[in-house]
Amino acid sequence: MAVTISDVAHAAGVSKGAVSYALNNQPGVSDATRGRILQVAKELGWKPSLRAKGLSSAKAYALGLVVARDPKLLGTDPFFPAFIAGIETTLAEHDYTLVLSVATAPGAEERAYRKLADGGRVDGVILTDVRHNDSRIGLLRELKLPAVTLNRPDSDSPFPAVSMDDTDGITAAVEHLLALGHVRIGHVGGAQEYIHGRSRRRAWEAAMAAAGLAADLFAEADFTAPGGVAATAELLRRPDRPTAIVYANDLMATSGQSFAQSQGLSVPGDLSITGYDNAEFTQYLNPPLTTIATDPMRWGRVAAQALLDQLNGTHSGEDTDLQAPSLLVRASTGPAPSTTTKPAP
Amino acid sequence: MAVTISDVAHAAGVSKGAVSYALNNQPGVSDATRGRILQVAKELGWKPSLRAKGLSSAKAYALGLVVARDPKLLGTDPFFPAFIAGIETTLAEHDYTLVLSVATAPGAEERAYRKLADGGRVDGVILTDVRHNDSRIGLLRELKLPAVTLNRPDSDSPFPAVSMDDTDGITAAVEHLLALGHVRIGHVGGAQEYIHGRSRRRAWEAAMAAAGLAADLFAEADFTAPGGVAATAELLRRPDRPTAIVYANDLMATSGQSFAQSQGLSVPGDLSITGYDNAEFTQYLNPPLTTIATDPMRWGRVAAQALLDQLNGTHSGEDTDLQAPSLLVRASTGPAPSTTTKPAP
Repeated sequence: MAVTISDVAHAAGVSKGAVSYALNNQPGVSDATRGRILQVAKELGWKPSLRAKGLSSAKAYALGLVVARDPKLLGTDPFFPAFIAGIETTLAEHDYTLVLSVATAPGAEERAYRKLADGGRVDGVILTDVRHNDSRIGLLRELKLPAVTLNRPDSDSPFPAVSMDDTDGITAAVEHLLALGHVRIGHVGGAQEYIHGRSRRRAWEAAMAAAGLAADLFAEADFTAPGGVAATAELLRRPDRPTAIVYANDLMATSGQSFAQSQGLSVPGDLSITGYDNAEFTQYLNPPLTTIATDPMRWGRVAAQALLDQLNGTHSGEDTDLQAPSLLVRASTGPAPSTTTKPAP
Repeated sequence: MAVTISDVAHAAGVSKGAVSYALNNQPGVSDATRGRILQVAKELGWKPSLRAKGLSSAKAYALGLVVARDPKLLGTDPFFPAFIAGIETTLAEHDYTLVLSVATAPGAEERAYRKLADGGRVDGVILTDVRHNDSRIGLLRELKLPAVTLNRPDSDSPFPAVSMDDTDGITAAVEHLLALGHVRIGHVGGAQEYIHGRSRRRAWEAAMAAAGLAADLFAEADFTAPGGVAATAELLRRPDRPTAIVYANDLMATSGQSFAQSQGLSVPGDLSITGYDNAEFTQYLNPPLTTIATDPMRWGRVAAQALLDQLNGTHSGEDTDLQAPSLLVRASTGPAPSTTTKPAP
């Protein structure tokens, strides 16, 4: 039988309230009484029940992550597992767990956040996949749920952001291709409702503009492999088809490369390809993928720590800027083809 | 301000205990009183606090998953994200969340289960990566934590298992290679402490024995990509090196294929390769990978449902056998080379 606060109160000859104050390190009892209560609690072998601890200190000792994606996509996008692994690395060092909810049905995302907050299931949440004018910022304010966001939202947000710049990596990819003689450099973007979908597109546009080139070879996809195939097919059907494509993530670059090869194009002989994220499998592709080496694990680790710091009152309130990821050149990029008379597939 | 049980008790003119009985649908109050209390609670807008609900009904409305792997591996193995996505698919249909813990330090795994149980953080757990003589079975019994296991442990277990047979897929891969004229068919196995590492190896041995062939080209790895490279190198150094390798998962097959190509071997011209799991990226490899099409998402979905059924008292107690995964032939397997005089790399 677990030792209860009542048992301690009885043995120490004090009220349950006094025991609660003493055990939760709150004012309301004298130091002498506190000392006696702690001594009795120790002698009786009292251990805090996590749930009771949760009730008394209003702490759940858990962080929340709500992912508003088709569960199937959660299972294929290499970003999330690595990011979650990073969160767990931090939480494993503390007495915290991760509560993970996948919300897909209309309205399910808001319900998921309300459930986490109302039920006191978590002490705070990490906001990923931040959207243009993200309505979740207002929702979390209303719910008084502490949060950190991945990258700074484009609307007013009271929450600290943990950011990893998109611009440098995409700029480096475009400059690498320019140096290889490419002029018609296309971009297969992620969903433009996400701020990281937008910022990667803007970085490509800016780098093209800086070189005095038009950024007109754009196709929007959805960060998935089938989406990458469709967008690649769209760009390759164009009469002014690109000799190089900068993709907004590895999954689209991987399926795009495979599709181009299936159409008889040589990578990088006819088409150079760059990805984004450096998922582990990209080094085993044939040719291995030139990509931007982000560090989702580190992002998760730092974001979780920033949220814990906030909960402990030790967060500076400043945003954290992680080192911008850099270009990793492998064999999927090469010199621009000298002639472009090869017929479009 | 949230309406409390005290508010309802006061407004209904009854004790808090009576309100608790009525709201939790327990005996202890008359039907008339129960009806009046429910009416008052409704009028006041009383809503159950999840944590309080957890306390009164001893339910956390959460399932637990403890993964005893380096978080980095959690981020790269394609099995887990898809499996977790499947769990979430079931939980999203109910009022449940998933509590995920990664335990890596020595002893951390046992502490993680104790924490989930003692703290009442979860109502039950799903046991993956079942090991030979798995000590967690006894631990969960001691903790009285309901559980389901992925595949039936090789020691006595009181928990329902949700199983997906390994044997048929590996057997089909070996028979496919035999039909292509291969005789020296090797196996790169996963860690043999896991029962799925063992069962895949045994299936390969049995299929070779059935064809009257020796199963002597075995190298143990650890289900990781670097492990796949090392084991492939080991087999390819042998004077009787294999013309085909059956791998225990896709990650090892992917890195093994890439390594063989880097050594100047043609896949499948010089070496045929089969994977296991049908991770999404395997269809985009060059050549695309012949593999066993398991369904980790379905496995997660069914395992979570089996655990919920158990918690609700509606589980039959019988094991669930999912359909055995079948062979998916792609371009990484082909006829055995007619001559083996090509020097080893």
